[in-house]
Amino acid sequence: MKLPSFLKPRPAFPFELVKPEIERVEELLMEQARAFDPNVEGYISYVCNTSGKRIRPALAVLAGGATGGVTNEHRQLSIILEMIHIASLVHDDIMDGATIRREMPTAAAKWGNALSVLLGDSLFAYALELATQFNESSICRKIARASRDVACGEILQTQRRFDFTLSMEEYFKIIEMKTAALFASATELGARLNGRSDSVVTSMYNYGNRLGTAYQIYDDCIDLVGDEKEIGKTLGTDLAKGKLTLPMLFLLRDATEAQRTKLQRMVLKGEPMDTTILASIADYAGAIEHAVNTAKEMLEEARKDLICLDASPHKEALVTITQYLDGLLDQCRTSV
Amino acid sequence: MKLPSFLKPRPAFPFELVKPEIERVEELLMEQARAFDPNVEGYISYVCNTSGKRIRPALAVLAGGATGGVTNEHRQLSIILEMIHIASLVHDDIMDGATIRREMPTAAAKWGNALSVLLGDSLFAYALELATQFNESSICRKIARASRDVACGEILQTQRRFDFTLSMEEYFKIIEMKTAALFASATELGARLNGRSDSVVTSMYNYGNRLGTAYQIYDDCIDLVGDEKEIGKTLGTDLAKGKLTLPMLFLLRDATEAQRTKLQRMVLKGEPMDTTILASIADYAGAIEHAVNTAKEMLEEARKDLICLDASPHKEALVTITQYLDGLLDQCRTSV
Repeated sequence: MKLPSFLKPRPAFPFELVKPEIERVEELLMEQARAFDPNVEGYISYVCNTSGKRIRPALAVLAGGATGGVTNEHRQLSIILEMIHIASLVHDDIMDGATIRREMPTAAAKWGNALSVLLGDSLFAYALELATQFNESSICRKIARASRDVACGEILQTQRRFDFTLSMEEYFKIIEMKTAALFASATELGARLNGRSDSVVTSMYNYGNRLGTAYQIYDDCIDLVGDEKEIGKTLGTDLAKGKLTLPMLFLLRDATEAQRTKLQRMVLKGEPMDTTILASIADYAGAIEHAVNTAKEMLEEARKDLICLDASPHKEALVTITQYLDGLLDQCRTSV
Repeated sequence: MKLPSFLKPRPAFPFELVKPEIERVEELLMEQARAFDPNVEGYISYVCNTSGKRIRPALAVLAGGATGGVTNEHRQLSIILEMIHIASLVHDDIMDGATIRREMPTAAAKWGNALSVLLGDSLFAYALELATQFNESSICRKIARASRDVACGEILQTQRRFDFTLSMEEYFKIIEMKTAALFASATELGARLNGRSDSVVTSMYNYGNRLGTAYQIYDDCIDLVGDEKEIGKTLGTDLAKGKLTLPMLFLLRDATEAQRTKLQRMVLKGEPMDTTILASIADYAGAIEHAVNTAKEMLEEARKDLICLDASPHKEALVTITQYLDGLLDQCRTSV
């Protein structure tokens, strides 16, 4: 049964430590909207004021705190990454024909596709404009590169819909580009802005990359096995769109020839429409377990990436996020 | 009568002096496509290989030559501005539902809207990534700002469709943002990359801004009074979309109350469908003449902006471009 997305918010992340910082980022985002023409400002503030989870800003601020201290540059980085994320969501909603996001009508539903394309473009251009204000041009370059990765990752995903030859390697490449790139930018650049050594910067990049990848695997699992009432968004959409996610790839890998044919037919024809049947098969065959374990191993590695940091409440919070996601992943195993 | 856009190319600009440079830019654009994932490269090279007029690259190179010499940085600027222009065209074609551009199917027609949104995004992100390679971060910032202006100008235009209260001031603001911003970036930054004084840089900005504005007015006139066979694209589309362009604004300004009502009805109902009738009225009432003269005055000012430069073949070419556009504008007067 598909329920509208406004029933319940998705689980909140443990960002208590940086709650005041996140609130400040929210204020700054609203202030930035005023940099636009008065006739455009309203659109910008509407899409920025979406009560999102603000994961990327939280990671940028936490990475700053864990590598030397939170500065205005970390707040700036937070705003920039969140704007790029919002721009990509505005464009995603056009492509998906989505009418509701986080309890509110999408920009596409309110003002149509044409305006929403331009709105995403102008937000994105503004984010890059802000990024040129960092002293190091490499910061801006890395942000632009991550933005390109987000778009290219989605191009690859769109290309490979309903393509049963998709390898796990290709799947990981796609989710690293479309999701993990901005997570990794937040943590890598958070450390870089504090002038930390290459090895610390690389570790922080790896932490963000692994966390983002594990987060996307969780999102993929939940789309298959989640409880819509609990998650608060329409599920089963990946399969309907032909996106082969990690549990499906494990299921296909371990299937016999006959099972494979059966699975392909189910995905191609969209039958059964009720994905709980496919979810039950995936659970029974151990594919959910495999996907959950893969993500949990990544989180374990992500915690090791933090070893190079001195003890601090911010470092602890970065550990806590991985444990929190661990817990969410455990629930995927038992929710079928 | 609407003819397909592949009948005849639009008039070529007098870029003979920099023909080898433009050819080099074409090659470099193709090389840049290879910076993308092999599975994305094909889309990028398709949209970059559109045999466009390459006005922005030509202006960047000419501005370089006229202010001290053409360097690799000018070639880089050319590629960046052209990529941003191409990204905006890819997105325009989605919004307009256009299926043909420059004798070829549009990206949207070939691969659908979803992929085209992402394709524009990734091109745009890559252009900004390249822009971070300039020594001065202000160059990248100005490019990002111009890109935002292009998108915001189009947002304002979309907002004001079929709005008969649009003032001339607002019209000029819109076309400065959506069209002149990238022209002005080409000429301003062309001079800035040669380390020229603020007064020269400002003059070059003004030249590009005026040329871009005059070019858009020409484009607006031709959409109303042009000969489709000669111009090689479907005309009358501005009115059909409710875009009130300069000749229409002059026509509305000089109309009596009764005439105004008649014009509004014609635009709102899209009657007559054959815009030659509206074009004849605009010509008869002197509105075409007013628009043409406005653009020609701007070109006169643009030539004055060049006075600060030493004599050179590149300076001469910048003058020639304004004279060439002058000639095209003259033809608008006699083409009804």
